[in-house]
Amino acid sequence: MRRPTVAVCGLGLVGGSLAFALARRGYTVLGVDRPGPLRKALASGAIARRARLGDALREADVVVLAAPPTANLRLLQRIARRARPELVVTDVTSVKRPIVRAARRLRLRGFVGGHPMAGRERSGFDAGTPDLFRGRPWILTGGGPWAVAAVRGLARATGARPVSMRADEHDRVMARLSHLPQLVAWALLDAARRDPASRRRLGLAGPGFRDMTRLARSPRRLWRDILQANRDEVAGALRDLRAALSERRLWR
Amino acid sequence: MRRPTVAVCGLGLVGGSLAFALARRGYTVLGVDRPGPLRKALASGAIARRARLGDALREADVVVLAAPPTANLRLLQRIARRARPELVVTDVTSVKRPIVRAARRLRLRGFVGGHPMAGRERSGFDAGTPDLFRGRPWILTGGGPWAVAAVRGLARATGARPVSMRADEHDRVMARLSHLPQLVAWALLDAARRDPASRRRLGLAGPGFRDMTRLARSPRRLWRDILQANRDEVAGALRDLRAALSERRLWR
Repeated sequence: MRRPTVAVCGLGLVGGSLAFALARRGYTVLGVDRPGPLRKALASGAIARRARLGDALREADVVVLAAPPTANLRLLQRIARRARPELVVTDVTSVKRPIVRAARRLRLRGFVGGHPMAGRERSGFDAGTPDLFRGRPWILTGGGPWAVAAVRGLARATGARPVSMRADEHDRVMARLSHLPQLVAWALLDAARRDPASRRRLGLAGPGFRDMTRLARSPRRLWRDILQANRDEVAGALRDLRAALSERRLWR
Repeated sequence: MRRPTVAVCGLGLVGGSLAFALARRGYTVLGVDRPGPLRKALASGAIARRARLGDALREADVVVLAAPPTANLRLLQRIARRARPELVVTDVTSVKRPIVRAARRLRLRGFVGGHPMAGRERSGFDAGTPDLFRGRPWILTGGGPWAVAAVRGLARATGARPVSMRADEHDRVMARLSHLPQLVAWALLDAARRDPASRRRLGLAGPGFRDMTRLARSPRRLWRDILQANRDEVAGALRDLRAALSERRLWR
């Protein structure tokens, strides 16, 4: 079977790593991005060639939206106007209800929501690695059977483990397993820095504190976008955290 | 100079590791504990011999209290009644005001508060290792110059980095760098487990969540003791955390 041609829109940490991983497995990868990342992706062999979105929609079998969340939503609208009916479209956004809802509204039948659960505190093409997804869950939500099969194939090619889930369950679970920890990492660092004595003594922090604030180095702008998109579930997770922190059994 | 004879009371993770580290450096280490840990410490060469507290007070130059916080306070009282004036006494408790205050009340002039900032989620003698303290800060508080010099020497012998600090500053800083992260690790795990969907999907958690809940495996009883002893500062740190979590700039 011919390997599908894949267009990756957005060659940051996730998109760049995906392009790398697929190129290694013999896929033809087209890159859609600004000139800077495109140049790097071409030079490193992560993409076979650069493409404009219009060309990518004609030539690719699968289009992957790997820009930040709100940019992906805008791309989805542009794609919906021009996509061939058999085109498979997927994304890598950490919040799934908004884009799944948008694809339904746009009647984009080839859309499968995706969320590879892999990341790093660093971002951008240079932080990418073809092994980013190895052994990690790649969550899939919605989409017709043919489209899901195509996206599962991509996920598997990167070494990831495809997991099917509804968009609302995904967003609920991620609020607790990913978004709340991110907020808490910032807040822990903030609480330590707010106190002058602790700020002076931050160098004493042990591996426990360092592990718990590592995520605070993640890019804030991207995370604001994610947290904003999932704000109802994140608010619920925060309520649960507050309840857990006020329970006397924890420490009395 | 003759290496001092050191009695270690309590051969758990910290006491056992300390005995190991000192024995390796040629110190004569006496062990004071129940028969189980004593047998293991003797068999492994961490201690030269077992001793009752009374014998240890006669024979040792330095006594290290390495039992849980409240047990250390009780030991301190027993020691104060019988200590030779030149005996150096130190401890490894994670909260410093109560024991420093008790030593002052008991007029134990040879007492130096100590807190080696090293730990693991596991506890007990079997979890110990002579390298536990290598490169880690070992906080010292209070005590006359001769006693401080002796305890600094012990800390250095384990590879730790002695740091002097007042007991109240220590407790304030630890509330934020150590005790609050511990509470938050439990609360994050709790918040995830409270939600049925997230509990079913805990297996999806990535390295971020795992790092942030690693401390939740620490022994609860010991930690209750620590948090209780430092409850005023921990309450202040919790207030700062709540404030940081409610600030809109974090995620809006």
